Amino acid sequence: MPKSKPRNSKPKLQNDLILRAARGEKTETTPVWMMRQAGRYLPEYQAVRDEHSFFEVVGTPELACKVTLQPVERLAVDAAIIFSDILVIPQALGLEVQMVPGKGPQFPAPLTEPEEIERLTRDPDLDATLGHVFEALALTRRRLDGRVPLVGFAGAPWTLMAYMVEGGGSKSFRQARRWLWAHPEDAHALLGTLADLIAAYLVRQAEAGAQVVQVFDSHAGLLGEKTFETFALPYLARIAERFKAAHPGVPAIVFAKGAPYALDALADTDYDAISLDWTMDPQAARNVVGGRVALQGNLDPCALYAPPEKIRRRVGAMLEAFGDEGGHVANLGHGMLPDHDPRHAAAFVDAVHALSGRVRAEA
Amino acid sequence: MPKSKPRNSKPKLQNDLILRAARGEKTETTPVWMMRQAGRYLPEYQAVRDEHSFFEVVGTPELACKVTLQPVERLAVDAAIIFSDILVIPQALGLEVQMVPGKGPQFPAPLTEPEEIERLTRDPDLDATLGHVFEALALTRRRLDGRVPLVGFAGAPWTLMAYMVEGGGSKSFRQARRWLWAHPEDAHALLGTLADLIAAYLVRQAEAGAQVVQVFDSHAGLLGEKTFETFALPYLARIAERFKAAHPGVPAIVFAKGAPYALDALADTDYDAISLDWTMDPQAARNVVGGRVALQGNLDPCALYAPPEKIRRRVGAMLEAFGDEGGHVANLGHGMLPDHDPRHAAAFVDAVHALSGRVRAEA
Repeated sequence: MPKSKPRNSKPKLQNDLILRAARGEKTETTPVWMMRQAGRYLPEYQAVRDEHSFFEVVGTPELACKVTLQPVERLAVDAAIIFSDILVIPQALGLEVQMVPGKGPQFPAPLTEPEEIERLTRDPDLDATLGHVFEALALTRRRLDGRVPLVGFAGAPWTLMAYMVEGGGSKSFRQARRWLWAHPEDAHALLGTLADLIAAYLVRQAEAGAQVVQVFDSHAGLLGEKTFETFALPYLARIAERFKAAHPGVPAIVFAKGAPYALDALADTDYDAISLDWTMDPQAARNVVGGRVALQGNLDPCALYAPPEKIRRRVGAMLEAFGDEGGHVANLGHGMLPDHDPRHAAAFVDAVHALSGRVRAEA
Repeated sequence: MPKSKPRNSKPKLQNDLILRAARGEKTETTPVWMMRQAGRYLPEYQAVRDEHSFFEVVGTPELACKVTLQPVERLAVDAAIIFSDILVIPQALGLEVQMVPGKGPQFPAPLTEPEEIERLTRDPDLDATLGHVFEALALTRRRLDGRVPLVGFAGAPWTLMAYMVEGGGSKSFRQARRWLWAHPEDAHALLGTLADLIAAYLVRQAEAGAQVVQVFDSHAGLLGEKTFETFALPYLARIAERFKAAHPGVPAIVFAKGAPYALDALADTDYDAISLDWTMDPQAARNVVGGRVALQGNLDPCALYAPPEKIRRRVGAMLEAFGDEGGHVANLGHGMLPDHDPRHAAAFVDAVHALSGRVRAEA
């Protein structure tokens, strides 16, 4: 596989708003992107999926690049996020993952008991297993041609463990949570393995072209504060520490969904920014984290079901709640949904630009 | 259908710990029960289910009574909770609900669009539609013979609406959340209908024999503070107001799962106690609600996967977090799980009694 080009051959970035905002700076307008902005709500994405399975798109750099660029071409977003999946890490560790329509990801052979950790590939070769992601990043970075920064990402150790043990999505994730209570040492061993691999993976993503990275702890909200501090926080912190040691200039964002109790501790790690879900109050979060980190978020994705004028009003309220001090990357509080109207996504993006410009001008 | 006996014919209650604790009083030991304490983790329940479907058990007073008493006979719990389901209210409104093994409840014809609200039965007759619940309560109250109080319950308006619109369990409940943004007036109409029916239903449950009632807002955590205050809080408050006006002496508990942002506002309603899920910090919750309400909860149900000695230690930490001032009903932070070991449930219950007695003795 071709090595990604060295960084200095890349075109100059014309829009670095998200980089500056994620570092806590005040920007002329608030940058905005959307989690899952490349996805099923876009007809041009559906057209690609009509021809290719989900993991075919993820695994083919040309296709991954194509769908990554779709929202950048349609909407005035201030970042592209590479089209991939958090479950490529379990795949790299040798677990099979299938995407079952209407059901989501399924592991035909999950880690039902701790002794099955031995089934995982030891120290997988990143180029052999995840080279397609690095190629997709390098290709997308070239095709973006400096228009907006490119975001890389990975799932957090606990979130990946939850899928690997449970075997798929679940209301309670009780099999995975059982390990934390019945097999805590095995859980720590698995989480440590995952953290090491994720850190190396993100470092390589930045080498390949990612200009921001985000770690998704989508299941953090299942834990509660003490369990989060035992089984999630140390591994999230290890990832940020290693990533920032390798790429001090590349902003790292962490998203602990459903875990307001995680904000204070996460603000003391090496992440530059914390992403808030839509149930968290931006002012309360700012009071907790102070000036330690920037914040990202957090409009309720379901607000995009409202008429555009109402979306605009809610964006105004959101911007006001995050305040006028900078250090805010606008986003949804969770991902885009398949039945969203792309015109409402545009209303969201445009409202952030229009209203944050005004807010700043008034300040 | 036979009318339930008048209250004064009922045997004297020998254990009123939960009644006093739910009113905020300090009790000699902390009362304890478990959400879903009658359920699949009990072999004697499984034996009943081998012969009868889920909704057969719910709909047959003799069977509902039988499984309600099972945990009371096996464990030293301080309350029985009537075996029923929150979805009996949508059933009373004319919607069909099926319990699909491995998938949970399913509505073959959910309310996909607002105009379908017209399909619902107007002012359903409570005796005709829910008489089986009142009979089960009356029968269980007699069979309990004063051993412990009997808890009745209902789902909250938003939680029931979420199921009725979505058609079943869901990760995002995006169809139901779409109504809140796209059809807010229709959502309010549906929520109002549900609140009126739920309030009347709970009033009748207390007449039939319930000595405590609990309202389950299992999906409150999907909303965020402002949306909760618009679409959940007023209806929860209306239910408590009407219930307490009819039965001022019967404690009412509310459980807004996943919604720490709801605590402060709920403490100003007529509920006597708020149930905390396992992710909420009891001390933080106490600081928010002050002396306005009692608290219930909140051990992580998955802690019951740990060895009994560890369960005991976690119970000690939980009791300490709730403090020594009384007004605490011990419970799990969510329901029992099907693969729990009944001996671990016993370890939980016994630890609450043993350690709270000691804590109180030391105080």
